[in-house]
Amino acid sequence: MTGFVSFIGSGPGDPELLTLKAVNRLQKADAVLFDDLSEGVLPHVREGADLVSVGKRAGRASPRQDHVSRLLVDYANAGGHVVRLKSGDGGIFGRLEEEIVALTDAGIDYDIIPGVPSACAAAAAAGIPLTRRLTARRVQFVTGHDVAGKLPEDLNMAALADPQATTVVYMGRRTFADLAEMLMEAGLPVDTPVLVAVGVSTPDQSLQRSTIAEILPQLRAEPPARAPTLILYGALADG
Amino acid sequence: MTGFVSFIGSGPGDPELLTLKAVNRLQKADAVLFDDLSEGVLPHVREGADLVSVGKRAGRASPRQDHVSRLLVDYANAGGHVVRLKSGDGGIFGRLEEEIVALTDAGIDYDIIPGVPSACAAAAAAGIPLTRRLTARRVQFVTGHDVAGKLPEDLNMAALADPQATTVVYMGRRTFADLAEMLMEAGLPVDTPVLVAVGVSTPDQSLQRSTIAEILPQLRAEPPARAPTLILYGALADG
Repeated sequence: MTGFVSFIGSGPGDPELLTLKAVNRLQKADAVLFDDLSEGVLPHVREGADLVSVGKRAGRASPRQDHVSRLLVDYANAGGHVVRLKSGDGGIFGRLEEEIVALTDAGIDYDIIPGVPSACAAAAAAGIPLTRRLTARRVQFVTGHDVAGKLPEDLNMAALADPQATTVVYMGRRTFADLAEMLMEAGLPVDTPVLVAVGVSTPDQSLQRSTIAEILPQLRAEPPARAPTLILYGALADG
Repeated sequence: MTGFVSFIGSGPGDPELLTLKAVNRLQKADAVLFDDLSEGVLPHVREGADLVSVGKRAGRASPRQDHVSRLLVDYANAGGHVVRLKSGDGGIFGRLEEEIVALTDAGIDYDIIPGVPSACAAAAAAGIPLTRRLTARRVQFVTGHDVAGKLPEDLNMAALADPQATTVVYMGRRTFADLAEMLMEAGLPVDTPVLVAVGVSTPDQSLQRSTIAEILPQLRAEPPARAPTLILYGALADG
């Protein structure tokens, strides 16, 4: 008998930011595949369930995506209920598509339990909203690197350099200095507020406010943090 | 003694999509101010706490925002722990800014507990990711109406008509037909997939898949649903 897979967003890091629905699913799961960033929620898993680390973490070599997808299919084919934990909301930069395709190809059913995105937790930790009625009616999440780990080549600069949006860059620590230069060239004001959020909602959390021009030399000079980093820019003033 | 306010995202509607942290705060709250869409999580509030409806719902007249802000300040000034529930994630189209400004002006401290955004829940319910590694490296949330309830005039069409992004339009049911025409004029392919998601994660949930050209006459012909509606477009194909 074929199993069933639940993709579950485990939230940004703080185990308390897990949903009740996720807790219920974890308690019933026969196998749980998790990334390092989701480890904090594993105490909800019942004794006897299989715990499988497919450890992805910023700055560390990761198992190949096709290996993770194959593992997922194998556990589902063994029957029972498989939970695939993904940090934040799994649908946002969680490589969900590849794993869904693998399950669909294998004829395995799945569902998706949404989670608290890291971007929302970063803004919340800083005490600011992501949208504002008059000055930020658009919020966008983008990735700072492509498949090869470089700044994507086909960036929509009209979208990204818009001072009337709030932008959150995922996985952008290494490439943001280059992106910041491009943004200023494209017309984003040099005094646009920036928030660098590291390890959001974890004990290692750090939040640094700056401006797009001021943060640039620092990003060039300092080595990237080992914890996941989000970079927010736009209308980020308090209140 | 001055009180303290926690803004809490109550998630998209399903009470199970509340976070553990939100449950803990609700259990300790002395007063809870809530919108209609957050009613499902009220059973977590302890007996004896004040429950204050500031009922905002799609298609119904709402209390004025300044009245809500004043209520919030009044309850906080009475002392104790006040929870302000907002559906989805409070930082995304939740009018959080106005209430933060009111608290700051009154010298009242606050924190923000992020929640599961309705946009994430809509995509999850449809079984699709919001981002894709090759075809959707940007996801954006926009509002379909301005302060006057009309399509905002200063829309960034280069951002919105980008087929390489996934876009979620909040509160856009009334204006989306007009927006769809503008998007196609701006170059968005007429066969771009669209998902109309009504009452996401509630018993009234309905999900309708279409394309941007096909949905247009229907939106013009049918009266808007009374439940909150999100409209997603972009790379929404399965898997």
